[in-house]
Order: sequence, then C-alpha cells, then structure tokens
Amino acid sequence: MYIYDTTLRDGAQGQSVTFSLQDKEQLIRRLDEVGMHFIEAGNPASNPRDAELFERMRGVRLKNAQLVAFGSTRRVGARAHEDAGLNVLANAGCTHVAIFGKSWDFHVTGVLRTTLQENLNMISESVRFLVSAGKTVFFDAEHFFDGYAANPRYAMETLRAARDAGASYLVLCDTNGGRLPEDVRNTVKNVEMEFPGCVGIHCHNDSGVAVACSLTAVRMGAVLVQGTVNGLGERCGNADLCCVIPNLVLKMGVDCFPHLSELTSLSHFVSSVANLSVDSRMPYVGRSAFTHKGGMHIDGVMKNARTFEHISPAAVGNERAFVVSDLAGRNSILPLIHAVDPSIGRDDPIVDHICGKLKQMEFEGYQFEDAEDSFKLMVRRQLGKYRSFYEVLDFQVFCQRPDDVTCTLATLKVRVGNKVELTAAEGDGPVNALDFALRRVLTIFYPQVEKLRLVDFKVRVVDDGGTASRVRVYIRSTDGEHTFGTVGVSPNVVQAAWAALTDSIDAFLLCNP
Amino acid sequence: MYIYDTTLRDGAQGQSVTFSLQDKEQLIRRLDEVGMHFIEAGNPASNPRDAELFERMRGVRLKNAQLVAFGSTRRVGARAHEDAGLNVLANAGCTHVAIFGKSWDFHVTGVLRTTLQENLNMISESVRFLVSAGKTVFFDAEHFFDGYAANPRYAMETLRAARDAGASYLVLCDTNGGRLPEDVRNTVKNVEMEFPGCVGIHCHNDSGVAVACSLTAVRMGAVLVQGTVNGLGERCGNADLCCVIPNLVLKMGVDCFPHLSELTSLSHFVSSVANLSVDSRMPYVGRSAFTHKGGMHIDGVMKNARTFEHISPAAVGNERAFVVSDLAGRNSILPLIHAVDPSIGRDDPIVDHICGKLKQMEFEGYQFEDAEDSFKLMVRRQLGKYRSFYEVLDFQVFCQRPDDVTCTLATLKVRVGNKVELTAAEGDGPVNALDFALRRVLTIFYPQVEKLRLVDFKVRVVDDGGTASRVRVYIRSTDGEHTFGTVGVSPNVVQAAWAALTDSIDAFLLCNP
Repeated sequence: MYIYDTTLRDGAQGQSVTFSLQDKEQLIRRLDEVGMHFIEAGNPASNPRDAELFERMRGVRLKNAQLVAFGSTRRVGARAHEDAGLNVLANAGCTHVAIFGKSWDFHVTGVLRTTLQENLNMISESVRFLVSAGKTVFFDAEHFFDGYAANPRYAMETLRAARDAGASYLVLCDTNGGRLPEDVRNTVKNVEMEFPGCVGIHCHNDSGVAVACSLTAVRMGAVLVQGTVNGLGERCGNADLCCVIPNLVLKMGVDCFPHLSELTSLSHFVSSVANLSVDSRMPYVGRSAFTHKGGMHIDGVMKNARTFEHISPAAVGNERAFVVSDLAGRNSILPLIHAVDPSIGRDDPIVDHICGKLKQMEFEGYQFEDAEDSFKLMVRRQLGKYRSFYEVLDFQVFCQRPDDVTCTLATLKVRVGNKVELTAAEGDGPVNALDFALRRVLTIFYPQVEKLRLVDFKVRVVDDGGTASRVRVYIRSTDGEHTFGTVGVSPNVVQAAWAALTDSIDAFLLCNP
Repeated sequence: MYIYDTTLRDGAQGQSVTFSLQDKEQLIRRLDEVGMHFIEAGNPASNPRDAELFERMRGVRLKNAQLVAFGSTRRVGARAHEDAGLNVLANAGCTHVAIFGKSWDFHVTGVLRTTLQENLNMISESVRFLVSAGKTVFFDAEHFFDGYAANPRYAMETLRAARDAGASYLVLCDTNGGRLPEDVRNTVKNVEMEFPGCVGIHCHNDSGVAVACSLTAVRMGAVLVQGTVNGLGERCGNADLCCVIPNLVLKMGVDCFPHLSELTSLSHFVSSVANLSVDSRMPYVGRSAFTHKGGMHIDGVMKNARTFEHISPAAVGNERAFVVSDLAGRNSILPLIHAVDPSIGRDDPIVDHICGKLKQMEFEGYQFEDAEDSFKLMVRRQLGKYRSFYEVLDFQVFCQRPDDVTCTLATLKVRVGNKVELTAAEGDGPVNALDFALRRVLTIFYPQVEKLRLVDFKVRVVDDGGTASRVRVYIRSTDGEHTFGTVGVSPNVVQAAWAALTDSIDAFLLCNP
C-alpha cells in the first residue's frame, strides 16, 4: 500500500490556499520525514514557481518519499516529443511523473472537442514518451467513475492505452466528487480484475464521503491512495489523508505509515504553513477529536478510556481533553523543559507550575507549535534561569501619510550595563521599523546580532472581534545555521510583534553569547 | 424514510455550541419548515432550559415535524414509575420520546456496574412505562456496533427487550464514531432481518465516515437517519444531515425531504444561531462547494456545468462561483464586470484592459479570492464609474510604550463637499485606531455607517522578505444583511489595512447610499 500526497498540487487548488517556494520546500521535508511514499509537489509546466522548485530538488535525496511532477497528456493534434508540457515533465528533476488524461467520453467530445481515438492516442503517446525519457509514470484517469458509468468500454480503453504504453499505476479519479462508496466498490472491483496490482484511487469530497470511497477502493484491491493533509483541495477538498491513513492502519490493519504518532503535528504544521485556521472537529487530528464535554462521557472515560474513545489519542499524536477540567499533556512538555534543564524530574512540582502557565497562555491566545523558542524562554523564566541581555527603556512609533505615501519611523532607547543608547529607524510599517531599530541598537553591544535575519513573519487573528481582536504574530529568524521560532500575542499588533521580535533576539543571543 | 434531526440535543454537545431557549424555538420553527420528520429538541429531565422549552411547545402544532424529548432508561435498581427522569419524559409536552440504553456488555458491567439482566430490565420497564403513558418511543441503542462486535447475542437481546416492550424504532448508535461502513453494513443487515421496518441509525464522525455509514445503513434497510445540521456534535460531530439528505435524495433516489433547495440557507442559519463560522469547504452547502479555481475547470464548466459539477448547485440552494484570478481567465471575471455594468460584451477591449490590471495587481500581491468587493471597486475605477464618497486629507498614527503598555492613537482629517472634519481615536493597535477614527468621522456625513461592523480581519505576508515583506490584509465586514470582502496590499501593514478598510466603506456606501 502506498500513500500518495498531493497537498502541494491538488491541495493548493483549494480556495485561499497558496504555497510559496519556501513553503513547498519545508512541506516536502516534513511529508518525507513522516513517511509519505509519494509527494506530488507541483506542475512545473504550468507555473514558474513549480519549475524552480523541481530545479532546486534535482538530485536531493529524500529519506522515504519519491517526488512526483504533475502535468497532462499532450495537446490535441500535437506530437508528444514536440509538446512543451511533456518536455518539461521529461526533464523535471525527479524520477516520477503523473499525467492526467480523459476517461469520460463526454469530456473528450464536449470539452477537448476531439475524437475518442485521438484521446487514446494522446494518452498512449504521452505515457510512452515519458517512459522512454526514463520516468516512472502514474496515469491519472480523470473522471474515471463518471466515464465508467457512462461508457465502461471506453473508460477501460483509456486505462489500457496508458498501461500498454508503460504506465506503472492507473489512478482512478472521482474528479467531481459525486460518487458514493457503492459506485466505487463495483467499479474498482472490475478494474482491478483487469489490471491487478496497479490501481490507485483519487477522491474528492463533494458528497462528504471521500474518505469512505478511498477505503472502499483499498478493500477492492487498490494499492495506492491519493489525498491531501487536512483534505485541502478544490471546492470541498480531496480525501483527507489525516483520516484515510489512521483508518487504514488502525482499523483495517494495513501497515502503510511508519510515523502515525506524528499525524496530529503534521496536520497542524500544514495548516500553519498554509496560514489557515485548523478545524477543531477534524477526525483524529482536531483539537476536539478527543475532547469530552458530556458529564457521562467524562465519567466513562475516567473509568476506562475505551468506553468513549474509538482509539487511543496518542496513537495519532493527539491528546485527550475535558471541557470542564483540563488536563495538560505533560508528556509533550517534558522534553522542552529538559532542553533548558535536564535535571528536572517528571514529578517535580515545577512541571505542574509550567503546565499551569502554559494553560493560561493558551487561554490568552498563545500557541507554541511553531514557536518552540518562545516556549523555552517561558520555561527559562519560570525556572529563574532567564537572563536579560538588554533593557528597553522606551519605544515610539509614528506613521504619517502626507501625499498618499505612508511613512513609518521608530525610536528606541536601550540600556546595557551602564550604557544607554538611543536610536531611530525608518521602515515599511511599524514592525519593520522597530525591527530595524532594535537590531541597529543591539549591534553596538552585540556585534554578532548582524548575522541574525528574519525569514518569515505571520500575523493571525485569534478571535473574531474585528480589528480589535487579539493577534498572534509568529516570527521565524535565522543566523544562517539555526532557525528560531517565536510568538507574541496582544490586542495590539505592534506589541505582539515586539514580543516575538525580542524573543527571537533572546533566543539568538543564548545560542551566540 | 425519516430524517431525525438532533441538532438541538446531540449537536449542542459540541464544543463551543450553546443554544438559548429563544435559539431553540427559532431553530425548531426552521427545521420544521424545511421538512424534518422528527426534531429532538433537548433533555427536559437534565436541564431546566429544556424543561421550559417543552412546556412552551406543549400543544403547539408544527407543520411537518414531531417534537421528541430525549432522556435515558431508569436508574439501576429504581422502579420505572418512580424514576424522576422517566416521569419528566412521560409528562413532556410532546407525543414522542427517545431514551438511550446500553447495548455493549462491557459498558453495563464496567460503567453502569450492574448485571446484564438488570440492564435488560431497565430497558424493557422504561419503554413499557413510557408507552403506557401514551408516548411513541425511540430506543437509542448506545454503543450498539461496539456491543454487537463484542457480544452480538447480548446486543440483540437489548433490542428485543425494547421492541417487546413497545418501542417503535430501534436506533443503532455508533456512539464512539469508530466504525467503518463495512461494519455497519453487516451489522445493520443482521438486525434488519430480525426487526424489519423499524431500524434507525445514529453515527458519529470520529473516523471521518459518518455520512457513508449512515447511507450504508439505509441501503441495508434502516428507515430512519439521525444526524445534525452542519454535523455539529461532541468531539468530531454527528453525521452531517447537510450531506446525508442530498445524497439520499439526489444520489440514491430516496424521496425524503421536500425542500431540498432550502438546505444551504438552513445550514447558514444554524451556523449563525450557533455563532460559529461556517466552514466554506462543507459539501453541498459550503461557500466553496461549487467554486471553481483551476482555469481548465472554469473552461469546462462554462461549456457544460456537468463537466465539473456533480449536481446542480441550485438543487441545494447553493451557487456556482469562480475564483477571481488571472489564471482563471476572462470567464470568471465577466460575471463580476457585469455586476457593475451588464452592457459590456465579452469582446469589449475594456475586458482585456481589466484582465491586464488584474494580472498586474496579482503580481503586486493582491488576491481577490475572498475580496470580491475590492475587485468590483477596481472594475468600477477602470470603467470610470467610481465615485468617491469622501476625501482623506491626512492621517497620522502614534504608538508609544511607556511603562510596558503600548498605546495607539490615530488622527484623521476628511472632507465631504465643503465640510472638513478632524477626528482622533484610540485603539488596540494602529489598524483598530484608524478603523475607529474613520467610522467615527464618516458617521457625521453618513449616519448609516453606524450599521457597518468588522467581522474578520486577516493579515498575510506575501513574499519572504522578513518584516519588510509585502503584507496582504483581508477585511470582512457586514451591515447585518450583506457581507463585504475587501483586500489591501502594501509593504506597510497600516497602509494595506487602510486600503481594505476604505474599500469596505465604499462597498457599503454603494449598497446603502
């Protein structure tokens, strides 16, 4: 059984989802580490960012996964070796490619506006060209289920064309997401009899049953499941791998994913990179997935977790919670405490104290998932091991807008030892101006600060009160070797950013004293 | 086939969901009008608000639905006619009641801590008592699927006890949500053979397959489906009726819901009463459910909607939409241009001009996916149809941080006609202060602005240059009836927010002149 992740390609088709080049590189690394078998990273023929991505990945060895470039069959009437898109795929910096082609006769005549025979030629010539260029080919049979319902003989011919030309996998797509598990059951069964051992499944969630359809296909013999983390994707999204994978492993006994306990953090990581809020009700990985509210349920779970939990939350890296009386997961916190002071035991009262502080900060809107350095600084403060490298006496920010141009200026006064320095800096916006001012003034005392630079900056609103909401600012900075993730929360975006900025300086100076 | 809505009971068990008495009354009216057969409205024995609700509903005639009061079997060792909870149900102001009882032997001995025989007595005596009080009884067999897997003979005995005592429906519950459709298929088939015509199904979504399990049960002979609107409910929620119902009606030909085209507005109504944000990716009823982003998909849908839509959006009261983006091409843009000026033809050179402008703005970091109103204002400007309601002469923002508190103040000077007004406002952060100042000063000229309020505010960094990156600010505001989505982009977060704020005011004033 193979898991084929298309978060970076089909997932990016989702409304409000955009990944930068850097986002994609980060995600590839993480998807590889947790154990995806295939990672479809983009469409290099259709956009320059993906072209650049595959160039950068050329020759990079991943731990578990094969990178896959996505594209389509040749154009109507073209010759495969002259087709621009196919040539990009043939030269892409990866050994695996996926191309989609039409399997529904109605689409061939109604959308492509060509003959059924030409469509078969497009499929077989395109696959053959890519195979002869040394690529392993996935054939994505677009609209396969609708096509099979309308004209089963023709739909099967498209698969035959791809397989005979050398495609390694035939991926049956429910492109419109309209099919129910019953349809999938019968169709996959028939296809699998004719093409044993090479059938894949790709479902969309327009009927709310993409996960069930994917599982049904596996029962009927499919050996490859395509989907996306958190079910990202066009319209209602793709089959959610965060449901498909644990169902396969824990419920159906299919051993296909080595690091299942990383699933929850993977889900949160993808949401955070996509800058989307996480749906707390997501099965397995959502914040509410093992949160018990009803009194009788809580009572039952306290007696025996099996009474109201279908699996152990730890199996997918999630945690049990009770709405009324929260129990913080000390297991997740201990390693971070040990990073500051390895001598602290599991039952030390300070651990309880830190759990309490964490709970309070989470209540205020903090989240430390992408901001471990802020968490470690908090631990340091609680342990009395925090040392301040400088004292901020005062700052001021001015924005003005004469002549339609907004100018921003920050002033900053800092003391180190007995020496006080005042500085000012202009910047694009208040945070940028403060960042410049802070780094300028600290370089006087700590020349190494010059090495530090910001690489990412994210602002998210925590609750729904309009512009007066609390905002959470994440900052990621680097000294070229380590990266530092920090966070600040405040109703005031300037204050939140300031907290994250100063944490990043502190984290850096602790590493580079 | 009967649809049994438990939004007001099991749905209210969801995290962050609370319904007031008025909410419940409103919802009952709406659920009745759209055609639910049964509405489980609460648990009158467990809380006074629900007790009051059933009192108020006594004698009220609904159009389609029967109201159902929910409770449990008698306590261990009690006598049915002396049990307080059962007496409340027997006297509730409705003809139908549902009681849950244990069907899993492990729960009987491990949680109830009584004998298997006593549990059977509890079921049969409780049902008999309610039937003799004149009620029609649903027996909710809690944990039925887990119980049937562990001890099928005993699980069936609990159903037998309820049925023999006069229960009209036996509802098989997957209380922990851990079951896959395959389990449901076999179990329901066996139960239906023994108790034909009275089996119901109640699924939870912990494995992401609650909808599929419910449909499977119907295929196997279940005549009643329980679920909630939008899938609200404990942990990962209940089976989402907004998926179950259209799948039954449109895909399986089960004629069970008269007003299917009200489904989308029902979904939005429930979210709005529950004060939860609507997940735009919800199948059938979500804002993105029929929103096309990829250029090829848009091209296909324009040729024939069937190519990329599994059903007609109108069937469930939803609407087709195209994401506004350069990739999408002119097809997605034309309807928005027509919203401003319907006389403009597809081949008018202004369309090319607007496409060019859009491409340039996207290059600068704009995205109009969630900001159609800013796009329409841009179109208006290109067509020379933009009218400015006020002129901003100047603004200034000051942030200061004495004593660790960041204070922000904005000043704003505006001219309308010959009148100039200067105002100042404090706020949490520069955007909030400017928002307050702008609305304060405009209310002087346009009192209707008081109706406008911000509901969402999002900041996202466009490229990867640290704090000097361009930021994109999305604003969503409402006048209670329409919502307005606007966007601004700038290296300066204050400037970007300012652009989005002023667009939202313009869009509002165009609607409310």
